[in-house]
Amino acid sequence: MSEKTVRIVIIGGVAGGASAATRARRCNEHAEIILLEKDEHVSFANCGLPYHIGGEIADRAKLLVATRELLQKRFRLDVRTRHEAVKINRGQKTVTVQCIADGSTYEQPYDKLILSPGAAPFVPSMDGTETAKGVFTLRNIADMDRICAAVTSSTDKKAVVIGAGFIGLEMVEQLVRRGFQVSLAELLPQVLPPMDPEMVVPIQEDLRNRGIQVELGDGIRRIVTSTDNAATGVELTSGKILTGSIVILGLGVRPNTRLAVDAGLQLGKTGGITTNQYLQTSDPDIYAAGDACEYVYGPTGESMRIPLAGPANRAGRLAGQHAATGQCDSTSPVMGTAIVRVFELTAAMTGLSQKAAKRCGLNARSVTIVAGQHAGYFPGASPITLKLLYATDTGKVLGAQAIGRDGVDKRIDVIATAMAFGATVRQLCGLDLAYAPPYGSAKDPVHQAAFTACNQIDGFGELLDPDSDLTSMQVVDVRTAAEVSKNPLAGCSDAINIPVDELRSRLTELDPTRSTVVSCGVGIRGHVAQRILMQKGFRKVANLSGGATIRARAAGPKQA
Amino acid sequence: MSEKTVRIVIIGGVAGGASAATRARRCNEHAEIILLEKDEHVSFANCGLPYHIGGEIADRAKLLVATRELLQKRFRLDVRTRHEAVKINRGQKTVTVQCIADGSTYEQPYDKLILSPGAAPFVPSMDGTETAKGVFTLRNIADMDRICAAVTSSTDKKAVVIGAGFIGLEMVEQLVRRGFQVSLAELLPQVLPPMDPEMVVPIQEDLRNRGIQVELGDGIRRIVTSTDNAATGVELTSGKILTGSIVILGLGVRPNTRLAVDAGLQLGKTGGITTNQYLQTSDPDIYAAGDACEYVYGPTGESMRIPLAGPANRAGRLAGQHAATGQCDSTSPVMGTAIVRVFELTAAMTGLSQKAAKRCGLNARSVTIVAGQHAGYFPGASPITLKLLYATDTGKVLGAQAIGRDGVDKRIDVIATAMAFGATVRQLCGLDLAYAPPYGSAKDPVHQAAFTACNQIDGFGELLDPDSDLTSMQVVDVRTAAEVSKNPLAGCSDAINIPVDELRSRLTELDPTRSTVVSCGVGIRGHVAQRILMQKGFRKVANLSGGATIRARAAGPKQA
Repeated sequence: MSEKTVRIVIIGGVAGGASAATRARRCNEHAEIILLEKDEHVSFANCGLPYHIGGEIADRAKLLVATRELLQKRFRLDVRTRHEAVKINRGQKTVTVQCIADGSTYEQPYDKLILSPGAAPFVPSMDGTETAKGVFTLRNIADMDRICAAVTSSTDKKAVVIGAGFIGLEMVEQLVRRGFQVSLAELLPQVLPPMDPEMVVPIQEDLRNRGIQVELGDGIRRIVTSTDNAATGVELTSGKILTGSIVILGLGVRPNTRLAVDAGLQLGKTGGITTNQYLQTSDPDIYAAGDACEYVYGPTGESMRIPLAGPANRAGRLAGQHAATGQCDSTSPVMGTAIVRVFELTAAMTGLSQKAAKRCGLNARSVTIVAGQHAGYFPGASPITLKLLYATDTGKVLGAQAIGRDGVDKRIDVIATAMAFGATVRQLCGLDLAYAPPYGSAKDPVHQAAFTACNQIDGFGELLDPDSDLTSMQVVDVRTAAEVSKNPLAGCSDAINIPVDELRSRLTELDPTRSTVVSCGVGIRGHVAQRILMQKGFRKVANLSGGATIRARAAGPKQA
Repeated sequence: MSEKTVRIVIIGGVAGGASAATRARRCNEHAEIILLEKDEHVSFANCGLPYHIGGEIADRAKLLVATRELLQKRFRLDVRTRHEAVKINRGQKTVTVQCIADGSTYEQPYDKLILSPGAAPFVPSMDGTETAKGVFTLRNIADMDRICAAVTSSTDKKAVVIGAGFIGLEMVEQLVRRGFQVSLAELLPQVLPPMDPEMVVPIQEDLRNRGIQVELGDGIRRIVTSTDNAATGVELTSGKILTGSIVILGLGVRPNTRLAVDAGLQLGKTGGITTNQYLQTSDPDIYAAGDACEYVYGPTGESMRIPLAGPANRAGRLAGQHAATGQCDSTSPVMGTAIVRVFELTAAMTGLSQKAAKRCGLNARSVTIVAGQHAGYFPGASPITLKLLYATDTGKVLGAQAIGRDGVDKRIDVIATAMAFGATVRQLCGLDLAYAPPYGSAKDPVHQAAFTACNQIDGFGELLDPDSDLTSMQVVDVRTAAEVSKNPLAGCSDAINIPVDELRSRLTELDPTRSTVVSCGVGIRGHVAQRILMQKGFRKVANLSGGATIRARAAGPKQA
């Protein structure tokens, strides 16, 4: 084969496939490029699907980003929709393709094959799930159309969302937008399972304040159906019944690896197709990109599945180039940066959560700060809660999570960028970020978190985890009496209240020989108080990380 | 002296001084810390001053961030406002201080001295400037109060702003907010002189569309006054008269280095006080932070003045720690990251502009892209123009500039962060940034700019600067005929219009032996067309950087 006339076959248009195809064409005008897609739409904005259901993206056509016509005209791609690859024959270098329209099959030869089969929503096997009317998953345009129709024709205007991950929460919001009464159940005891539990408490509270029934730590047992086999609700493991004629299952995805497995391609530990730095699988003529493959995960250096659109697009682009030319840049480690809007709140993360670090057996510490997204004196200031995780021995940043109304995406992107270069928390302290009152502060939340982490590393400001047991410690609450009475320190009835500004003159009220923890609203005054006590001969003084605010969240969600 | 009881004197509360003082206290409870400030307010939000004049920050008290009382109570600082340091006596280690109230002086001993004198607005010497009523600069609370009073009592409601830098543009916006008819003059032929001229054209057009008279390339000759010596306007060098009873001079600042110079401290090439990595001046017992000193500038590694609030705060913090303990982390190079809101537009930059790189004699290239701040299919998408500058030989990122309605700050902060680690454009390609439809795109503007730069480096997609002379080249405009007729390619009447989707079938209309440039709306379709022509045997094919959109800006601002 001449490289110029290489025949590239791509399986799956979404999640990297279209990106691979268009890059391959730009790299090689002479290549034959065949794009096989089993569905009707070769490429669409899958991240936008919930927003059309809710009407926020009013025009359905906007979701069809790269149409078949555009890909054919502009990129001279041989686009074959409703053509499903059913088998890879590595020996002959062909793909067996079935035309869905008439069921006929043919052998499609390839020189280079790119697998972008994506992933499929997980559907638990249980009574009623697969047959009941009104039960949906959301992955493609057809799914979306079905849900839209059901939403429009619904008479009870009640819906149940199972699974409080990204898609589940987006669906909750969009169904509320359509006037539905929505209940939400999640097997884990928190929404947004990839994040640490105390970080997502504001979302849980906000959902409940909006009248959404949120059941945490409770899984689905079965779909409850009427006599005509239409869903009327969901029974949870606890026996609770959530009612609604529409049930959305948002239980995560499983990679579509059957073709790869049947072809004997290697899978990794997390069940995705193994790829090297050029996205080649264990067969160098076969590439994989998107939700079905594994990438190198930055924080640990290990390969894993990271089913996100950004990495899929970038991987597709590189795979397309390598297939078309035999070379491309190496892939960059993926940080798993992700973000979701839930009504007026934004939650985002990059890298490891604290619980994930624990699962990995990493020696990690965290700091949590609460700071305005921009200057406090400028109108519209609202708090961001930012948690920064770092390696105890090296100070290397391992991850970050943030929640707030505004500016969350910026802070997570800044930290994700720093992590790409192996940044330590100390290096974050010196970042030169853009400051004017509408955009930030001279000391940005990223700086504040980094300062706090360095203080901790240097033994200058030891922190106590927000959910620590304070029994037997001398607890000094350095807020004003008014603040304390409004919002007492959770799980600590015997805190001594001395406002920070009076601390120096009231030291005799404290016992310097006892192990002491100071606490304030979010940790800033606590740090000042801690430094005073440390230098006044107190034996051991810690500052409660995030103060009373984060402790209230760590102590468990408030009951609605 | 014992380190514990070190006596630290700090000159100037704003621009790093208060930051130094509070950090010094937290580091050393036993130190004596004296904060001298010649003005009434020891610390205030100087970046917020314009917004109070316009009423956007309604409550004046909000600007007084760290009050004298707070600093005394919480940090046990000896705050002496209206006490001016008039001389540093290095031999005796004292500062001569004058009490402004009664004119008396005293000698204040120090062990460690921190200079944070800030900078003063530049006022050109010319007829009328210094004595005329209605002529203002804006640097402190007193200036602000004076302008507020004049604005409130103004009868003509006309104002002239001289200087279109950050403060000048903020003042234009805030005066318009107060119902003023405003005219703006700038000596250079563009607003926001630190940025490249074509980048700021949207601001110039927006200002004119709002009815503001914008005079570029025209400096101030004199203040025009009435018989009672009140300003009635400004005469420009061209002879033009701008009328208004309020004249704001926003002509930049000059560092307050007199004390340092008199004390024989070393100044750097740009006229700021020389400091080392711990902010020590040429006298190791004297530190400097803020607008009067020089920092290491990241893109060049050279020391220079960078009068911005963020670096001042971080430098103050480090200086305070070092003065109090004898050690601190090293300063990080400063990138000069800056941002400004002008009505509904945001402009920001980090590192070098292209013109600054040229002045430095650096071999640099740039790419300019126009891309949505978030997914195009999501409501509210609006374009960001992003210009990325990099070293021709190494691909190292040297700077970035961006302008748009939303999301500008995030992209500049991401690039500033990458620059802190010496990033190359290739490394930007792999950044894992947060993507969901309301926040970004799977291929973020940062990625798009980086991809374009890598294509340029790899000879895969050579770019032609937007303002290039296209005479004698074969110019192919690959937009649709409707686009071309609506917005013809500036300065090029003989472009051949072949829409990209028809290019392959109309190649015979072009001459493959001629040097060819392709152009589209912003450069994306141009790249596709370029790749086709390059591989179809065309001799030399460049893509016009930023397409017709950026060329229109580079060809000079449209006349209002």
